[in-house]
Amino acid sequence: MAGKREAKREEFRARLVEAASARIARSGLKGLRARDVTGDTASALGGLYNAFADLDDLVLHVNSATLGRLRALARTRAERAQGPHETLEALALAYLAFARDNHALWSALFEHRLAPERPLPDWHRAEQATLIQTIAVPLRELAPDLSEDALLVRARTLFAAIHGVVAIALENRFVGVPEADLEGELRSFVDVIVRGMEATRPGNTG
Amino acid sequence: MAGKREAKREEFRARLVEAASARIARSGLKGLRARDVTGDTASALGGLYNAFADLDDLVLHVNSATLGRLRALARTRAERAQGPHETLEALALAYLAFARDNHALWSALFEHRLAPERPLPDWHRAEQATLIQTIAVPLRELAPDLSEDALLVRARTLFAAIHGVVAIALENRFVGVPEADLEGELRSFVDVIVRGMEATRPGNTG
Repeated sequence: MAGKREAKREEFRARLVEAASARIARSGLKGLRARDVTGDTASALGGLYNAFADLDDLVLHVNSATLGRLRALARTRAERAQGPHETLEALALAYLAFARDNHALWSALFEHRLAPERPLPDWHRAEQATLIQTIAVPLRELAPDLSEDALLVRARTLFAAIHGVVAIALENRFVGVPEADLEGELRSFVDVIVRGMEATRPGNTG
Repeated sequence: MAGKREAKREEFRARLVEAASARIARSGLKGLRARDVTGDTASALGGLYNAFADLDDLVLHVNSATLGRLRALARTRAERAQGPHETLEALALAYLAFARDNHALWSALFEHRLAPERPLPDWHRAEQATLIQTIAVPLRELAPDLSEDALLVRARTLFAAIHGVVAIALENRFVGVPEADLEGELRSFVDVIVRGMEATRPGNTG
């Protein structure tokens, strides 16, 4: 009986996450209200606050679902690519495609702000780290001598750089790369980075 | 007389921009209210709306002042550096220093959102472009064969990449480079890019 109740609870949580995701996808994170989500799922406010600590907790789970989809896309694209150069290019273009196709949900990954005294939960940080791990794999081939820690930091740097190029262009609030040039620029940028890493590899006199 | 009245008006506008900048620096863009700014300058709401179209217009002028200070810092640092590698590194580190020292004002450059139907004014976009121009100068030496247009797009890409690395790390909402590693990562990143651009330069068989 406890198992069945737990399964029902999980199913309800998933429905709330789905409804909140759809709301954010349609009208952004800013306007999200608990009442709208319960309205969409024909449930009571008390139910939502029983299933999640608060609206922020629900948004964290929306972001978790978004990260899961992004990670799945990244893995599929990385698997189809050969070698570090092709893999990094595929990952950068997959990131751009995901951001374009899921603009509001993707923005929510970076815009959602918890209260200052409330740190991002470890389970969610771990999910973000798993995404970065996808980049560390091809980077390892380009930088075989880096320690594991340094490699992960390098992967974070590269992720943040690609994110910056995509975000400034798509958000259109600060002069960014024109959208028509974005794919070409990401390709050139990855190309420059791969060549630069090859040149700085110990034993290479480039 | 008209000249004197105009000078008084400009002085009042400058005082409002200064007061709004101080407010944003203290408590961020989100909480900014017109009433607080007029309170700080001991002026009337009508005066503010006479001097600026609305609060968004005032924030654009705060951002303009912030960009001016950032540009001045970038130029000073670039002038002291020698050659494209040192210059790009100096610019990246100056950007990090500015973002750290002026966190809320720097965030406002990217967070301020006009109504969807209201495009960013051309004069403000031009100021953003002038900042990017600072990066185009050293890039030109590394990519002498790029057309002027392609060079400016490449400079936007590099700016957005450096911005991404700094922003994700300082905002602390998504796993970024640990703050202690940030300077070192920016240096390595610029080094990789410079080497990569040298290697992809036509005539170089790297």
